Amino acid sequence: MSWQIEPPAGGAPEAEQLVVGVDFGTLSGRALVVRVSDGAELGTAVHEYEHGVMDTALSARSGQQLPPDWALQVPADYVSVLKHAVPAALRAAAADPEQVIGIGTDFTACTMVPVTAAGTPLNELPEYADRPHAYVKLWKHHSAQGQADRINHLAHERGEPWIDRYGGAISSEWEFAKGLQILEEDPEVYAAIDHWVEAADWIVWQLTGRYTKNACTAGYKAIYQDGSYPDRGFLTALNPDFADFVDQKVAHPISQLGERAGGLTAEAAGWTGLPEGIAVAVGNVDAHVTAPAATAVEPGQMVAIMGTSTCHVMNSDQLADVPGMCGVVLGGITEGRWGYEAGQSGVGDIFAWYVNNQVPGEYRDQAQQRGLSVHELLTEKAAAQPVGAHGLIALDWHSGNRSVLVDHELSGLILGQTLTTRPEDGYRALLEATAFGTRRIIESFDSSGVPVQELIVAGGLLKNSFLMQVYADVTGLPISTIISQQGPALGSAIHAAAAAGAYPDVPTAAEAMGGRQRAAFVPDPQRVTAYSTLYQEYTRLHDYFGAGGNTVMRRLKALRRQVLGQQEAS
Amino acid sequence: MSWQIEPPAGGAPEAEQLVVGVDFGTLSGRALVVRVSDGAELGTAVHEYEHGVMDTALSARSGQQLPPDWALQVPADYVSVLKHAVPAALRAAAADPEQVIGIGTDFTACTMVPVTAAGTPLNELPEYADRPHAYVKLWKHHSAQGQADRINHLAHERGEPWIDRYGGAISSEWEFAKGLQILEEDPEVYAAIDHWVEAADWIVWQLTGRYTKNACTAGYKAIYQDGSYPDRGFLTALNPDFADFVDQKVAHPISQLGERAGGLTAEAAGWTGLPEGIAVAVGNVDAHVTAPAATAVEPGQMVAIMGTSTCHVMNSDQLADVPGMCGVVLGGITEGRWGYEAGQSGVGDIFAWYVNNQVPGEYRDQAQQRGLSVHELLTEKAAAQPVGAHGLIALDWHSGNRSVLVDHELSGLILGQTLTTRPEDGYRALLEATAFGTRRIIESFDSSGVPVQELIVAGGLLKNSFLMQVYADVTGLPISTIISQQGPALGSAIHAAAAAGAYPDVPTAAEAMGGRQRAAFVPDPQRVTAYSTLYQEYTRLHDYFGAGGNTVMRRLKALRRQVLGQQEAS
Repeated sequence: MSWQIEPPAGGAPEAEQLVVGVDFGTLSGRALVVRVSDGAELGTAVHEYEHGVMDTALSARSGQQLPPDWALQVPADYVSVLKHAVPAALRAAAADPEQVIGIGTDFTACTMVPVTAAGTPLNELPEYADRPHAYVKLWKHHSAQGQADRINHLAHERGEPWIDRYGGAISSEWEFAKGLQILEEDPEVYAAIDHWVEAADWIVWQLTGRYTKNACTAGYKAIYQDGSYPDRGFLTALNPDFADFVDQKVAHPISQLGERAGGLTAEAAGWTGLPEGIAVAVGNVDAHVTAPAATAVEPGQMVAIMGTSTCHVMNSDQLADVPGMCGVVLGGITEGRWGYEAGQSGVGDIFAWYVNNQVPGEYRDQAQQRGLSVHELLTEKAAAQPVGAHGLIALDWHSGNRSVLVDHELSGLILGQTLTTRPEDGYRALLEATAFGTRRIIESFDSSGVPVQELIVAGGLLKNSFLMQVYADVTGLPISTIISQQGPALGSAIHAAAAAGAYPDVPTAAEAMGGRQRAAFVPDPQRVTAYSTLYQEYTRLHDYFGAGGNTVMRRLKALRRQVLGQQEAS
Repeated sequence: MSWQIEPPAGGAPEAEQLVVGVDFGTLSGRALVVRVSDGAELGTAVHEYEHGVMDTALSARSGQQLPPDWALQVPADYVSVLKHAVPAALRAAAADPEQVIGIGTDFTACTMVPVTAAGTPLNELPEYADRPHAYVKLWKHHSAQGQADRINHLAHERGEPWIDRYGGAISSEWEFAKGLQILEEDPEVYAAIDHWVEAADWIVWQLTGRYTKNACTAGYKAIYQDGSYPDRGFLTALNPDFADFVDQKVAHPISQLGERAGGLTAEAAGWTGLPEGIAVAVGNVDAHVTAPAATAVEPGQMVAIMGTSTCHVMNSDQLADVPGMCGVVLGGITEGRWGYEAGQSGVGDIFAWYVNNQVPGEYRDQAQQRGLSVHELLTEKAAAQPVGAHGLIALDWHSGNRSVLVDHELSGLILGQTLTTRPEDGYRALLEATAFGTRRIIESFDSSGVPVQELIVAGGLLKNSFLMQVYADVTGLPISTIISQQGPALGSAIHAAAAAGAYPDVPTAAEAMGGRQRAAFVPDPQRVTAYSTLYQEYTRLHDYFGAGGNTVMRRLKALRRQVLGQQEAS
């Protein structure tokens, strides 16, 4: 169990061992100082990236415009987090740095840094500083869709065995699509890349002076399966100049999660204020590192990290083909087990879209008067209804469908509106639709021999208890909730403790330092029955629009692109 | 051609013949003074009903609560229109009443008055004044759905020949369902009814002292076909006590539209300030009377009266079975021709629902700042897009579907939403959906041997030119528009002129006094092609959800009623 405590008045008691976890998010990094013995969170600090996300212009430099669907970052911004957030967190904890025995990190993924053999990001070389492709490609850089489409088409055509490990589709977000995009759009930058490095590993390189790949991103994002990457034949068929991509830029020794990547360098000790030589844990990913923070690394424990989107991670001792999962990787969550990942591409961002676009001013005014957010007001109004009272069913595909349909050409739907349908009705229907989407994923795992026994929720949407109850009632599962409000940073700290040898492995460290409230939300039998009826309706619409009954969503998106393209051209 | 002119400075020139048309709407009545020679509209006045629509409580009396879906009115409020609006319109026209040669009226329908043999509304008798069933049942009184369902079920079971004249379904709004409801809910009031009278005929009775039924409502609302009503056997099977309904309360001599119902009584002359004895035209219905006002009474001219809902009326020389029409009646629009009626149950009220429930405060603020209505602002933003750019398809069934599916258990749908969908996108999709619904109706007529050659629009939505252009582009037909802004009142005035003998018949009077702007909106060939693609998508969804592919909408409505009923009971 972990809990939030006030820093002890006279500094931490002597001889108490501490670790630091650093969570690198999309807009900022957070450092957290944690007590090794029990996971107590002693102090935290956040540092925002100076250049944020560059998605319309190369604002760090010339300000040149970027095409649609780009998203870049500046690697030096990550180092700034080490320099500012870590010392600030130590101060907030009133901790003596000498007590710190290790540091662990987690990152967004797939977020890629093109570097030289020495690990220098290409954008830091004057000759490439004005070249967009020399910068970090953030996870949500989506302009390599054409490359991803070709990768998938070719993989199915050639019957590549690895494609089934990814639910049949490689994402445009991942290493190969992004790498191929550089080759095809800026071959000079491509040629200058010595290593194509996950930011998760690059930051560890900065801390240790040594490059090692973590097993998690190697498996989920770099298509490393059963000891190998996609072969030369495949790469050559994609593009002859891509033949050496793996050998020259990707392949590198791999370390398991929770291992010690190396010791903190003198330089990094200077940045952070931490002792030189302490353990630095192998890099990790924000979603996956959350599982130990929630003490949820046993088979059957599915962790849903619910924010703008939802990522589901679960360990298993079985390797199975689960339709619609994003990936299954040996050691992807903890060493020695198969880590499964699934996802819903839109969750909190669908609710936000609704609030910003489909809720009248009267509600905004009423929320302001009562000191509530519009989300809180809508939730309050929606929660008063019995199941089925709004008469609506929605499909939660506003951002496409990751699991189980793996189709980003899908779109949202709401059905059942009448002249008496109120704004809170549509909001509730969308909340429910995301819960139905989660149930569909759970059923996919269940029916593939990888049963889900407990759903553990982490992430920002935890704070909406009505939503949590809906998830319990829709899935029929007890919902446990992570106790830490800094799940990823705590998870990184747990990995630091394991890497420093304070615990024999991550699961043991998690048991001592992580925590969840078991069955915080319990399904209500009557509502479970009522929702099962609605879920059947959801499923029927899901399959009709998502599995070939009517591909109208795909056609509407194609038409939209066509007419907007014509408009631009004219 | 008709046009709006200023009243002549010194009163109307001598010997110029005038007529008065009075349009009884849902909330008020409007009188219009019109020149017989050319239809010039000389003056108008509106009088609101004192008691409006009583839909939650019997506010005219004790204030007792009414059940859901009731809608009552007070007959004396209609007489007040004669007393106030007619004299005010004469003053506004600076007209000498002696110039007026006739008066015509039109009414909402089916709006029913329960009266004694002398024509006294039962609510005016002290013993019934507190009984809701003694009041006028307004057209939108919808609580006789159970009775309507039984009528339809029985009619199909017995193979009644008349049911096909109504697209296979009698509405809960019509005379038989409303009458049966009174019998079954308040048999004493039922027993006291000597005549069950359309308000359209009751008001003429007040003007002439004589009761005659008009052929229009007798056919469309009282199931009068080929010289007879539903027979005793049918009525007995519905409810043995209903056996005499037709013989005792409904059957009565019928007059054709445009005929003289009688002369203005001394009493009514006193109310209106018009000369005693002038011609009073046979009663009529607001939608149907609009056709001559738009010079649209020839076969192939479909008039769409577009407001909160849309009513389509069209004459033909052919009797055909048009799937999904509301009714076909000989002499229903003009004497001697088959008058077809179809309808879309929700149009303007869907747009209003969207504006009230699904448009954010920023838009309201922006509209206010610019002095626009929210409708105008959304239309402006939506109009800037090429066809297909929003990526959406909607079904316009928020108020059910009258034509061509005749199913009020259907509901709305919107499909294709993404995180970049804006409020104006949904608004435009709804505008388009109603146009697709109109195209579907036109195609139903076309394929049944009753071709539509011209679409003439009247009603409040005329003012949205973008909407009109969408209708032209979606239907591929030139859209003509009525010139008068008081279509129904002008139509009533045209009937008054015919009844007074100033013209040999209504079509001739219409040619002189009515008017339309031909082809005011012309289809754009490129947009016609683009919309045809979208219409195919609409049709596929329309048939899937409306014609048995997936009856989810029906199930959701049933579930909604069930859970709300349980909630009320608990």
